[in-house]
Amino acid sequence: MSPSLNSPLPKHPPLAEDLVATLKDHFGSRFSQGESIRMQHGRDESVHEAAPPDAVFFARSTQEVADVVRLCHRQQVPIIPYGVGSSVEGHVLAIHGGITIDLAGMNRILATHNEDLDATVEAGVTRLQLNASLKGSGLFFPIDPGADASLGGMAATRASGTNAVRYGTMRDNVLGMTVVLADGKIIKTGGRARKSSAGYDLTRLLIGSEGTLGIITELTVKLHPIPEAMSAAVCAFPDVEAAVDTVIQTIQLGVPMARIELLDALTISAVNRHSHTTLRELPTLFFEFHGSPAAVSEQAQIVQGIAGGFGGQEFAWATHNEDRSRLWQARHDAYFACLQLKPGCRALPTDVCVPISRLAECIQATNEDISLVSIPIALFGHVGDGNFHLVVLVDPTSAADMHAAEWINERLVERALAMSGTCTGEHGIGIGKTRFMVREHGAEAIAVMRAIKTALDPTNLLNPGKVLPPGTAS
Amino acid sequence: MSPSLNSPLPKHPPLAEDLVATLKDHFGSRFSQGESIRMQHGRDESVHEAAPPDAVFFARSTQEVADVVRLCHRQQVPIIPYGVGSSVEGHVLAIHGGITIDLAGMNRILATHNEDLDATVEAGVTRLQLNASLKGSGLFFPIDPGADASLGGMAATRASGTNAVRYGTMRDNVLGMTVVLADGKIIKTGGRARKSSAGYDLTRLLIGSEGTLGIITELTVKLHPIPEAMSAAVCAFPDVEAAVDTVIQTIQLGVPMARIELLDALTISAVNRHSHTTLRELPTLFFEFHGSPAAVSEQAQIVQGIAGGFGGQEFAWATHNEDRSRLWQARHDAYFACLQLKPGCRALPTDVCVPISRLAECIQATNEDISLVSIPIALFGHVGDGNFHLVVLVDPTSAADMHAAEWINERLVERALAMSGTCTGEHGIGIGKTRFMVREHGAEAIAVMRAIKTALDPTNLLNPGKVLPPGTAS
Repeated sequence: MSPSLNSPLPKHPPLAEDLVATLKDHFGSRFSQGESIRMQHGRDESVHEAAPPDAVFFARSTQEVADVVRLCHRQQVPIIPYGVGSSVEGHVLAIHGGITIDLAGMNRILATHNEDLDATVEAGVTRLQLNASLKGSGLFFPIDPGADASLGGMAATRASGTNAVRYGTMRDNVLGMTVVLADGKIIKTGGRARKSSAGYDLTRLLIGSEGTLGIITELTVKLHPIPEAMSAAVCAFPDVEAAVDTVIQTIQLGVPMARIELLDALTISAVNRHSHTTLRELPTLFFEFHGSPAAVSEQAQIVQGIAGGFGGQEFAWATHNEDRSRLWQARHDAYFACLQLKPGCRALPTDVCVPISRLAECIQATNEDISLVSIPIALFGHVGDGNFHLVVLVDPTSAADMHAAEWINERLVERALAMSGTCTGEHGIGIGKTRFMVREHGAEAIAVMRAIKTALDPTNLLNPGKVLPPGTAS
Repeated sequence: MSPSLNSPLPKHPPLAEDLVATLKDHFGSRFSQGESIRMQHGRDESVHEAAPPDAVFFARSTQEVADVVRLCHRQQVPIIPYGVGSSVEGHVLAIHGGITIDLAGMNRILATHNEDLDATVEAGVTRLQLNASLKGSGLFFPIDPGADASLGGMAATRASGTNAVRYGTMRDNVLGMTVVLADGKIIKTGGRARKSSAGYDLTRLLIGSEGTLGIITELTVKLHPIPEAMSAAVCAFPDVEAAVDTVIQTIQLGVPMARIELLDALTISAVNRHSHTTLRELPTLFFEFHGSPAAVSEQAQIVQGIAGGFGGQEFAWATHNEDRSRLWQARHDAYFACLQLKPGCRALPTDVCVPISRLAECIQATNEDISLVSIPIALFGHVGDGNFHLVVLVDPTSAADMHAAEWINERLVERALAMSGTCTGEHGIGIGKTRFMVREHGAEAIAVMRAIKTALDPTNLLNPGKVLPPGTAS
């Protein structure tokens, strides 16, 4: 085991002058030590304290990434890959200094194979950019974490979102990747075949590794045919339990929902204010149905029947594309809407995921905790997967707020783990959740992860301090 | 890098007397050095020369596996996990001697969570056993490689089969596992949450690792609701291209097929003889549709329309359960039916998978190769995934047959790789395909796999000689 994983790196090793000179010489203004650029790359959407890198490199190609990594490797400089900075657990913070590689300029769509339902893109391509480029093809890329994240970043955090219940997560939707290793070597993983049993699944190992095992520079993703019919609806319920019971029964019946999202009353109230909607301020499910017109209508009928049985009100439908878009925009803005509940606050988003049979119980117990603290906490999420978020609104300068938020999160994670769930359904570990890793996986499994990290990045240069807890050797 | 991966282990190191004494003492007849038991465990369904282990241990629990692995680790004895022996690339052959751990006795279904659509089983539980236990629950486990394989073995080879086009492969259907490592430590990977972003995906790393990184002793698999309606049909086509074009268009339209299988004319003729069916001896597609009665009927109508456009004949339907079962039994027996085409022969099954747009071209070029050799070769497979098999029938004592088979397979793999495909869609690497690994993944990616192997099993005790090519250090 490398000692470097166990003894923190020096916080801000100054970059060697010759390295800086070489990079400036090669890349001109695409290598920057400017204060504002460094600061901008030293934070994400999380409450974690900013930690700017020593410099930022704006990459344009896999070969450039490899070249810079090789130089950094030679001088043992940490490297942090950066997409659009929409992560929420401090993934991109340069807590040990080093050079951030900004991949946003690698935004070419390299190939689209409509007949094979796949596309190969550079890591900086965002999901909306990819979908815009697919206009007219009859295909779309479904994974939708809300933010217009880069596909490389989404792969690195194993992102998902509102329609994972039908289309899966990034784990399920990446066929292959190009990856730069810690020493600057370039590998290709996977390919374009729909399935393969040819050796270790490096693609899946790298998905969710948050830049700690390699830097994803290109990826081939699955595309899906745009369904002939798509219809969305909202339905208010007397209480959260009734809404959750509706979800559970829908999933258990195998209704192929495209989306099934819960927003609690506080979230709905925030959404109404932010998005000028007039939804009833009750726990509410947002549904989306995909399929042929007949299949959509049949699914809708089944789900309406289930919802009615649990006291759900009439479905309010959005069948036109613009109405659907408006509805989902409101859903996606829920996070920002909630932020406005407490002016000047920041949000600590939680992210547990539990087996669906435990979901009602988990939410109920969590609501009891929420009733014991005085900070506003909204609840919403991807309940079809058993995944939900709290948006815990804190004044980051208030020790009492931070303590309450911490208490809620700790209790929630413990509860989810006790229910065979996970501390993070889709946000990732970053620096925010490393302390839960041993609790979730056990010390021996963490030792295996650490052994893999050491095998691939023996001196801990790639995004150090993320994913794995600091701690004992394996 | 460990030198042990690069210099072959001695072929048959004799087991130390004290180890044998300890194991006999602890496990009685469940530890056997008997000739017939060793021989039985030294072969699989492949043409590879048998290589019996020095002894076989019949395990009953994860703890027993861990105990035996720890003893073997102490004395550096190779360990080969064994399910039912249905692998086809020499996965279970004890080519470096050692102790085979037979997991068939670990056949308890530990928990079924109907409401969460999952079940936790010991590794020796077979897919038919699991499905039998689910009777009356409304749920089923879909992955169906034909053979009644053990679920542990299916996970280890990343198996799939006829309905992967809808339900995915083992990669997609395992939520978590219990695994014994090379030193006898026990880890749990994953959990029961439907999705997680908590660290490296050890579950996916172990799936497809063929016992070389750890021994899977328990696993939690996804279950699926039995569709309200299931209907199967066969349709004969004037030629293979017409059949394949039908498949391509069906997949591109997003029709959610449960199964879509191609059998060429020679295979149909073998099936007719073996299963006493009266199918027209033409290239034929076997379809299965799952869904509500309305959805099934709608899908069937679409596909009939597509097939008709390519010269497909009338669909022959099997809607009753018994008829459907008979049809799929005939499909599953195709391999054995083909074996009877050449009495006394053995079969070399190929397993490439290509992007679906290249499938017709790949099959056509392959058929041209087939026309150049004089051995019988049948073609069938899971064309909805772009995956098809040749059953190359050889007299294993004939150098000419073996040479021809080798030539066909080499050409086919080269062709698939040139089309961004894979040398194995579902069978795995075993010993039979290690020579294609560098060609498929590149030397640098293989070096990464080797580094992971070395990190987890530094002295190469777990199923040595499988998956990774012998060769240069990374």
